[in-house]
Amino acid sequence: MKKIIECVPNFSEGRDHEKIEKIVSVFRGKEGVKLLDYSSDADHNRSVVTLVGEPEALKEAILEFVGVAIKEIDMTKHTGQHPRMGAVDVIPFIPVKDVTTDECVELSKEIGNLIWTKYNFPVFLYEKSASSKERQNLSNIRKGQFEGMPEKIKSEQWKPDFGENKIHPTAGVVAVGARPPLVAFNVNLNTSDIKIADKIARNIRNLNGGYKYVKAMGVELTDRGIVQVSINMTDFNKTALYRVFETIKFEAARWGVSIAGSEIIGLVPMMALIDTAEYYLGLENFKSEQILETRIME
Amino acid sequence: MKKIIECVPNFSEGRDHEKIEKIVSVFRGKEGVKLLDYSSDADHNRSVVTLVGEPEALKEAILEFVGVAIKEIDMTKHTGQHPRMGAVDVIPFIPVKDVTTDECVELSKEIGNLIWTKYNFPVFLYEKSASSKERQNLSNIRKGQFEGMPEKIKSEQWKPDFGENKIHPTAGVVAVGARPPLVAFNVNLNTSDIKIADKIARNIRNLNGGYKYVKAMGVELTDRGIVQVSINMTDFNKTALYRVFETIKFEAARWGVSIAGSEIIGLVPMMALIDTAEYYLGLENFKSEQILETRIME
Repeated sequence: MKKIIECVPNFSEGRDHEKIEKIVSVFRGKEGVKLLDYSSDADHNRSVVTLVGEPEALKEAILEFVGVAIKEIDMTKHTGQHPRMGAVDVIPFIPVKDVTTDECVELSKEIGNLIWTKYNFPVFLYEKSASSKERQNLSNIRKGQFEGMPEKIKSEQWKPDFGENKIHPTAGVVAVGARPPLVAFNVNLNTSDIKIADKIARNIRNLNGGYKYVKAMGVELTDRGIVQVSINMTDFNKTALYRVFETIKFEAARWGVSIAGSEIIGLVPMMALIDTAEYYLGLENFKSEQILETRIME
Repeated sequence: MKKIIECVPNFSEGRDHEKIEKIVSVFRGKEGVKLLDYSSDADHNRSVVTLVGEPEALKEAILEFVGVAIKEIDMTKHTGQHPRMGAVDVIPFIPVKDVTTDECVELSKEIGNLIWTKYNFPVFLYEKSASSKERQNLSNIRKGQFEGMPEKIKSEQWKPDFGENKIHPTAGVVAVGARPPLVAFNVNLNTSDIKIADKIARNIRNLNGGYKYVKAMGVELTDRGIVQVSINMTDFNKTALYRVFETIKFEAARWGVSIAGSEIIGLVPMMALIDTAEYYLGLENFKSEQILETRIME
């Protein structure tokens, strides 16, 4: 594979295993597409799929997947704890290898257009693909959920980017867009005082004046008797892991607290950690092509 | 590719570009084998090829390559600065992905046996594949070079591992073996005093009581007016990059010298740097399967 894009579609079925298998199996045995993972949550009544693939192959697989999901899922009968607005609820595209965010934006628009013309399933573009600032944040688009959507999209403000001012009767609407890779990164502190974790979370997160691509909150790890700064790194290319780590270290020192360790939850792009090693070793003129595995994937 | 092995064969032709192309092109367009790089040196009259591949495909490609090299290269007419003993001089196998060193040892023996039976080209097993301690070090085997080899291998001590007590008349003998990945890692010091780089090199290298898998020497970077500790990390899984880096840092501090930076020359396996990031972030329970690229290569 030369250009590689990750895609993490969410669909609104997390209980009926036969249906889930039917939907997910679209991604099996497809040339140029690899199904990495999927998981379903019965309370949320929702499933999340993780794929990687080449742009063209991914486009075809996603279109087929949307067709099957629309056929299998009837949103007029859907209940679940997680907010949702469509049979396929959200389709994010994430650049992984030799692909820019702009190319992912282009792909998301192309696919959005095809989803509408092929299935009459209205599409909102979100995140980096959004047509207005208001539509960047998925929760703004999803507000009102499936049940409120028929009214909401009648307004000019909430006209879909592809589609007319009415929902697909059983599938609702879907959000499609490009976004940077997310890294779930938690830093553990040698204290049981949740107030310290909360303070540090506020100091580092964008919401309160911290780093632009950091979301964070304090969490108690009661089993271990310590607390954690739980972080979503929303663009590690711009806000680096090591920078956040070193900032937490010097903020914690102010309270006489040291770092117990850290953890990465789920998948992480190699470059998030290579970048960390480059910083600590002070590597000069290092190029990602020097990494053997990068060459193997060419 | 599931199991991936790197192979870095060296052959004794670095001047005749037509011959070099004929030999290297064996590795082009082969299913399951990827030619990453090759470079030729006219003074050394020698070429180095870097390949990766699946074990079976690599075996077949290497056998074909040895056949072509023997046909093209006549060692009775070979001159060059680099010590050499064969038309193909050395064939190292290096584990990269989902392969153990033991599996590379097995592969090297299988290929060594086939090189002898197919081409009457005698084979010495070296490094991890060596049949005795004396044969681990390539320079012991190669001593005497092509010209001295007919006499040398008559002795019981230097009987080839595969072959009889006479060389291939025009190709000589070849060394085949498994070894860990090498990382060329240099650390630059904020001083122009070569004696400090030399002292630190001695402190960290195996030869003088330092780390087992470190070879090192002091080097002057006259352009920049600083010195460097130039290091060959011969097994980063056992002697970690960060450990050597931190040791150089505290040794340099003794002389009031700080670290200016570092560099990695050529290819490096991803895990050498991931391991570095794990150390500095204090990552808990991190698994290489969490790296997106590892999953893509599965």
